[in-house]
Amino acid sequence: MRIALAQVNPTVGDLAGNAALVIAKVREAAKAGAELVVFPEVVLSGYPPEDLLLKGHFLEGCRKELAALAQTCNGIIAVVGVPLLEGRDVYNAAAVLANGKVAEIYRKIWLPNYAVFDEKRYFEAGSEVLVLQLPDLRVGINICEDIWEECGPTEEAGLAGGAEVVVNMSMSPYHVGKGAERQAMLAKRAADAAAFICYLNGVGGQDELVFDGQSLVLGPTGELLARGRQFEEQLLVVDLDPAAARGLKGKECPRSSWPLRVADVAPDAPVGAGRATREAGANAGEGVASAAEPYGLMAAALSPDAEVYRALCLGVHDYVLKNRFRHVVIGLSGGIDSALTACVAVSALGAGCVTCVSMPSRFSSTGTKSDARELAERLGIDFREIPIETLFEAYLGSLGPYLAGRTPDVTEQNIQARIRCNILMALSNKFGWLVLTTGNKSEIAVGYTTLYGDMAGGFAVIKDVPKTLVYRLAAYRNSLDDRPGPIPASTLERAPSAELAADQTDQDTLPPYGLLDQIIDAYVVRDESVEEIAALGVPLAEVERVIGMIDGNEYKRRQAAPGVRITPKAFGKDRRLPITNRFRG
Amino acid sequence: MRIALAQVNPTVGDLAGNAALVIAKVREAAKAGAELVVFPEVVLSGYPPEDLLLKGHFLEGCRKELAALAQTCNGIIAVVGVPLLEGRDVYNAAAVLANGKVAEIYRKIWLPNYAVFDEKRYFEAGSEVLVLQLPDLRVGINICEDIWEECGPTEEAGLAGGAEVVVNMSMSPYHVGKGAERQAMLAKRAADAAAFICYLNGVGGQDELVFDGQSLVLGPTGELLARGRQFEEQLLVVDLDPAAARGLKGKECPRSSWPLRVADVAPDAPVGAGRATREAGANAGEGVASAAEPYGLMAAALSPDAEVYRALCLGVHDYVLKNRFRHVVIGLSGGIDSALTACVAVSALGAGCVTCVSMPSRFSSTGTKSDARELAERLGIDFREIPIETLFEAYLGSLGPYLAGRTPDVTEQNIQARIRCNILMALSNKFGWLVLTTGNKSEIAVGYTTLYGDMAGGFAVIKDVPKTLVYRLAAYRNSLDDRPGPIPASTLERAPSAELAADQTDQDTLPPYGLLDQIIDAYVVRDESVEEIAALGVPLAEVERVIGMIDGNEYKRRQAAPGVRITPKAFGKDRRLPITNRFRG
Repeated sequence: MRIALAQVNPTVGDLAGNAALVIAKVREAAKAGAELVVFPEVVLSGYPPEDLLLKGHFLEGCRKELAALAQTCNGIIAVVGVPLLEGRDVYNAAAVLANGKVAEIYRKIWLPNYAVFDEKRYFEAGSEVLVLQLPDLRVGINICEDIWEECGPTEEAGLAGGAEVVVNMSMSPYHVGKGAERQAMLAKRAADAAAFICYLNGVGGQDELVFDGQSLVLGPTGELLARGRQFEEQLLVVDLDPAAARGLKGKECPRSSWPLRVADVAPDAPVGAGRATREAGANAGEGVASAAEPYGLMAAALSPDAEVYRALCLGVHDYVLKNRFRHVVIGLSGGIDSALTACVAVSALGAGCVTCVSMPSRFSSTGTKSDARELAERLGIDFREIPIETLFEAYLGSLGPYLAGRTPDVTEQNIQARIRCNILMALSNKFGWLVLTTGNKSEIAVGYTTLYGDMAGGFAVIKDVPKTLVYRLAAYRNSLDDRPGPIPASTLERAPSAELAADQTDQDTLPPYGLLDQIIDAYVVRDESVEEIAALGVPLAEVERVIGMIDGNEYKRRQAAPGVRITPKAFGKDRRLPITNRFRG
Repeated sequence: MRIALAQVNPTVGDLAGNAALVIAKVREAAKAGAELVVFPEVVLSGYPPEDLLLKGHFLEGCRKELAALAQTCNGIIAVVGVPLLEGRDVYNAAAVLANGKVAEIYRKIWLPNYAVFDEKRYFEAGSEVLVLQLPDLRVGINICEDIWEECGPTEEAGLAGGAEVVVNMSMSPYHVGKGAERQAMLAKRAADAAAFICYLNGVGGQDELVFDGQSLVLGPTGELLARGRQFEEQLLVVDLDPAAARGLKGKECPRSSWPLRVADVAPDAPVGAGRATREAGANAGEGVASAAEPYGLMAAALSPDAEVYRALCLGVHDYVLKNRFRHVVIGLSGGIDSALTACVAVSALGAGCVTCVSMPSRFSSTGTKSDARELAERLGIDFREIPIETLFEAYLGSLGPYLAGRTPDVTEQNIQARIRCNILMALSNKFGWLVLTTGNKSEIAVGYTTLYGDMAGGFAVIKDVPKTLVYRLAAYRNSLDDRPGPIPASTLERAPSAELAADQTDQDTLPPYGLLDQIIDAYVVRDESVEEIAALGVPLAEVERVIGMIDGNEYKRRQAAPGVRITPKAFGKDRRLPITNRFRG
């Protein structure tokens, strides 16, 4: 049995474009001799379509594309994800296309409604496990969250339903280490279901989410047979021998909560008509994993730092291009955050698509000014310098009567950051460039950033990257080059400073970043209390001070640009706290 | 049977403060001779607590406050809303406090997960209808959404459970006309359940939501017996005669999906021990509705414009004060949007808490400059003028090399708006004032507004008010005064203009506001398609142009300040569209 996993990158709302992408991959899979080709969850709409699902005409559009698509599927079975309106209910559905029509529908049973997920807002839950009876094997079909459920639809398909292969279509958002989590879960699921698992995950960036691909194929005892590439499209083609699973059946299904339906899918045209080209499978550019060479399609797993860097690049690439921008502009301070942001932008888009602007003030050091220029030169990007001193003086003059007699404070610092916002946004407006912001997770957490100042921009590249990880990623980026990397050593070594006042460093206001990042991880990601965090060895008063800063800056984060999520909990859809909130602790 | 409905205003996260509020109202209700006092949904946490519910120590705090509170409840039964952790599950619960302890728990069955609601993210659904057997009557208890369900827990309590009274504790968000919707629904529910309905709705502003109070008491044939005040706290005390309901029983319960539990609540201390003061009920400041004088507690229903104006005032008042601000600052252009915003701020906070700043440019007319000053004088508020011409020149100078040779466009317009942002934010930072923004729903819908410019600020007062309604509300505000109202006639009559370029009016870019607001209502609020909207008589090309503007400005709205929701669908938690989105139509 030859199965193709179409690890593709759809665009939310582009129904015609996504349908065309599916058709192209169906043809490619048929040419590679596959009998069955699988696409990601709701590939026709893109994921997550959010409130587009409340529009009747959007759902009607999905239905039309699906019907047209079905007509093109002959000689191969295609399993395609689509949001499907039936009566008054909408389902997260897998349509099984065969013989030029929609042969079967599976409806997702487990609807995630936590973290970044809101599926119960949109979908009704399915209630039936589906197994396809093909001429030579049984294939269970389920969708994303379904397979994470222990003793769920997967085991039921494999044991009660006798499926030798269970196919799961996912759009599973990335965070660091997610691949290993998935593989461990799938190994257990495969063994428990005594079935091959074909786990197909889509790829691409969608607002704050990145889908990392990395589809996995496991054997019926849980062994890994193939791994798709991370952060890239791929058509992964595997040969599976159903007999290997059959010998393992006979266990009782541990739970059977749903009705099981076994549906015949009997092709008019011989399934695998393309099989004549089977030996040419490798010529489709992808190779075929088989029992004889099971590891032929094993993409190397990236290191954690490489993985995060690639996630940021894909997130930026897709946000920029799917929103039809062609060029970005970045304020370059000479510090490490904007340096890393510029590196990611160049990796994602190419040096010709990136402009950097240095906007020095009276507080900018010679070192940071020359580091900014040096970085731009090494990256080969357009570089401009627009000093803000005259503008700063003009504000101090205009506001003079109101500020007179008051000690300079954060007010004067923020004025500078907001001048820079105005300059970058003017270039953005005039030339149609997208402004990339440069704030990291640590400073956004505690509000060490200026609203309408350095926070201003369309996309926040390292918004979910804690400062300690910023350093690691900068070192990683530099290590990619044989010659010294693009980020000057002095940028890496200088004490962090916002350079908005004389002799300022971040640590005047904040605890050391190593400590701060520990507190943020405990408080933001793990929802621990003051007492629990203090138990890590941090003085209670310091924990309370930091948490007070985090809570007190919710209003800023609510007005922040979206950015790439790389941790299990980012400041975005997965953290929904009230602004008006008196709870402390 | 004397029942008190405590229409109170809790604060999200202020567990101790909310508990103190409950204790004070329990005492007041007892003093008024009530046997039972009801509080809003999750009154101890405030609503909605959002992701505070994911913190174990927050839930533990709720449990502690509830336990302490129970000890204070003797001689009266209190029904108190609380998020309740049981095992690993969290319920939206009603705790019945009697004899100094938690006597019973009801768990909300219907969890709303649409529009602004995310309750399935947090809560497990209850599965049992609860009826309290008191010495002299049966009282059904349910929570908010439960009562909106036809043939739901209300009918089951009233018919299968024999309850003469059904108490519903709500936090029901306001939109214009919501009161009439609720009353019509409750009249049907009361008649179908053959029971009195005591519908208690909390009051207050919480971020974008306003809860309007307006609790309702209906008799068992659906007649309205009492209406609480809108947008104000109130202890509404009513006398109900259970015999009036008993005569209507005997219908079959049309559906019985949940187990029914009838729980004895037998007070140690005589319930209604405070009844000696019964005749003094009116002395508690609230009066008592009774069969003899059923309309004694009938608050007058406000007109639609008055209702919206009051909603805006409460929203501003609570956002400002619950976030511990004491003063606001507003940029005053001389146009109608900022004029209305200033009026609302003064109504909400008092003239002494409002500063207005006029920031004229070369494009500001004599008329708007003098209107701004005139409005401030009539409102009696602090007024300052900070011209931006010097600053604008300085930007044009600094950016000159980059803008040279290019036609002036929206870039130069936005620079001015962003200068004003920087000035207002400097005052905010220096003096601790909250910036109120002045954009209306029509311009936020189509993006006719500057990100980091006039959009900048902490709270967007008229964000959900379409321009046509802005005019009506301005006229309404002026009508409140005997002498000519605060808004100059010339402000009301002048053609709307952003005054960011020479001879500019809004209608250079936008369709007439009457038409625009129709399109926005159809597209945003009702999710209609291009074709459906064109069928209203609008040229198809114009619909497509406007919808393109709406879709293309999602990125701006994502960075907008929160503002008061007054329509069934605002740009906030109830409209969740992807930024990256190729769907058009």
